[in-house]
Amino acid sequence: MTNPVDLVEIWRGDMVECVHRGHVVVCDDAGQIVSALGDPDKVIYPRSSCKMVQALPLLESGAGAHLSVEQLALACASHNGAAIHTDRVGAWLRDLGMTDDNFRCGPQLPDDIPTRNALIRANEKPCQFHNNCSGKHAGFLTLNKHLGAGPDYQEPDHPVQQACKAAFEEVTQETSPMFGIDGCSAPNHACTVHGLARAMAFFASAQDRSDRRSAAAVKLTHAMGAHPALVAGETRACTDLMRAMNGKVAVKTGAEGVFIAIIPEKRLGVAIKIVDGATRASECAIATILVKLGVLDPAHPAAIARMQPPIVNRRGIVTGSIRPAAALR
Amino acid sequence: MTNPVDLVEIWRGDMVECVHRGHVVVCDDAGQIVSALGDPDKVIYPRSSCKMVQALPLLESGAGAHLSVEQLALACASHNGAAIHTDRVGAWLRDLGMTDDNFRCGPQLPDDIPTRNALIRANEKPCQFHNNCSGKHAGFLTLNKHLGAGPDYQEPDHPVQQACKAAFEEVTQETSPMFGIDGCSAPNHACTVHGLARAMAFFASAQDRSDRRSAAAVKLTHAMGAHPALVAGETRACTDLMRAMNGKVAVKTGAEGVFIAIIPEKRLGVAIKIVDGATRASECAIATILVKLGVLDPAHPAAIARMQPPIVNRRGIVTGSIRPAAALR
Repeated sequence: MTNPVDLVEIWRGDMVECVHRGHVVVCDDAGQIVSALGDPDKVIYPRSSCKMVQALPLLESGAGAHLSVEQLALACASHNGAAIHTDRVGAWLRDLGMTDDNFRCGPQLPDDIPTRNALIRANEKPCQFHNNCSGKHAGFLTLNKHLGAGPDYQEPDHPVQQACKAAFEEVTQETSPMFGIDGCSAPNHACTVHGLARAMAFFASAQDRSDRRSAAAVKLTHAMGAHPALVAGETRACTDLMRAMNGKVAVKTGAEGVFIAIIPEKRLGVAIKIVDGATRASECAIATILVKLGVLDPAHPAAIARMQPPIVNRRGIVTGSIRPAAALR
Repeated sequence: MTNPVDLVEIWRGDMVECVHRGHVVVCDDAGQIVSALGDPDKVIYPRSSCKMVQALPLLESGAGAHLSVEQLALACASHNGAAIHTDRVGAWLRDLGMTDDNFRCGPQLPDDIPTRNALIRANEKPCQFHNNCSGKHAGFLTLNKHLGAGPDYQEPDHPVQQACKAAFEEVTQETSPMFGIDGCSAPNHACTVHGLARAMAFFASAQDRSDRRSAAAVKLTHAMGAHPALVAGETRACTDLMRAMNGKVAVKTGAEGVFIAIIPEKRLGVAIKIVDGATRASECAIATILVKLGVLDPAHPAAIARMQPPIVNRRGIVTGSIRPAAALR
């Protein structure tokens, strides 16, 4: 076991005020580690970073054959709950002949400020379709309709989740030692940082293979890159970074400091876990690694905004910055 | 230099998902370390945890002799911007013959949800009196009126800030090596974790001395304990914990994972810094330490809610918990 490594520093004035440690693995299409920091064998919950893995059974089963590219992007999304997301999820529910009550993800106040404020002004409570995972759950409902199984599709022993677990274990090439219940109530299976990077390398190299699962992986990776705003939303790291790379690389955040990247042109998968769970650090780390791998222009505003963003106080004064630590530079 | 120590764990299911490290010092009235974890000599920014130190010149100078106990509590506060705070800060400004424009803290959307939602519904922008530091700044304005100095009382070389720096260096018994600019634009002087705990032990033992500064320290500590809701607000850790201890211990949070305690009955000062800056960890750590020191009942709901709070998802399912790590237990 290797200790985690200092990855990101928070500066204020001339002093480092905080440090974030973590584990990083860059993996090739043979499942081998190309580079790593910290402990590749550290077992983590991938959280929402593995939504594209959870969407594989939707396509492999044939249940999602009719879905649009936009819908596939939403199935992989942790979205802001803005109208561009909720309008499409609402239409998807109607296509299924279902309503918000069929969801099992729970309601969430949208992160999109105009939408949130509109709900507050109207004295309305958020619905389940506002939940950042509602696209993933629409995918679950679509698969479940195809399978004809019971309504509690989020239960760990339900055929939908059993299919997700099987896909997860196969692309990580690991037997998951346990699962936790996610914010959206679906099981989230644990794997090593190496296993998560291996899964992303499977996606990154899927165009080289002709099997059903690889074809599904190609479609999902393409959908994320084609619709970056549907995967997260305006001002969000996933959206900004995918746009900056012209959709040629898919990136996805996960709660508690996880971030992944799928780089088809290099057949590489990347997985990051920040030990303390800080998103400000996982965003800085993924941007820095994408620059180092030569797929993100360090001069692009989206790269600068994530790699070395200023910390600005309530009078607009720059008081410090977030910076990659020496191991990442 | 000693490494920081694992202080708090974030559990999900049967696995630790995240870990927060930090430094802790408990200091007696002779300035000696009673117990410590991590590196007592680690230099940190105390941030808002040292507001009672920044309020010392207000009383020592005589400028604040007429202030109420409530006003002294507000001078030490990082408040929610609720009406109980802003009404009193507004009245204080009027007493000074000043307006919101005299503040230099900048506007901040209140953390108090009803107040925040009321602003959103009214399409109003927050004012500087909503800033969580507006009580401290009202204290600065009061001192500045007494001194007759220029309007930019937040500048590091201004007499108000020079007085704060002198008091800070004297109660920490350290020469501050540098300062950063805080979220409210005032300078925040760095010290060691030991120095911060030493300052809090100065406050905790002030009743044993008869000098002017000690008298000021007694008044400020008493004010915080007497008005816990003014120091933070409903649902906040500082307020809940001080209420749970019947106001006999003063506690104060600071941004980026700082927490202090002043324990007059034991003449002890406590200082905590979480390396990654997480508030969920500093709150768990301070509650655990207060229980260990015998001043907080571990069965009190406020103690349970900070030491081992459940993590609840969007459907109300308990998915994990925050827990003190072995070194703290």
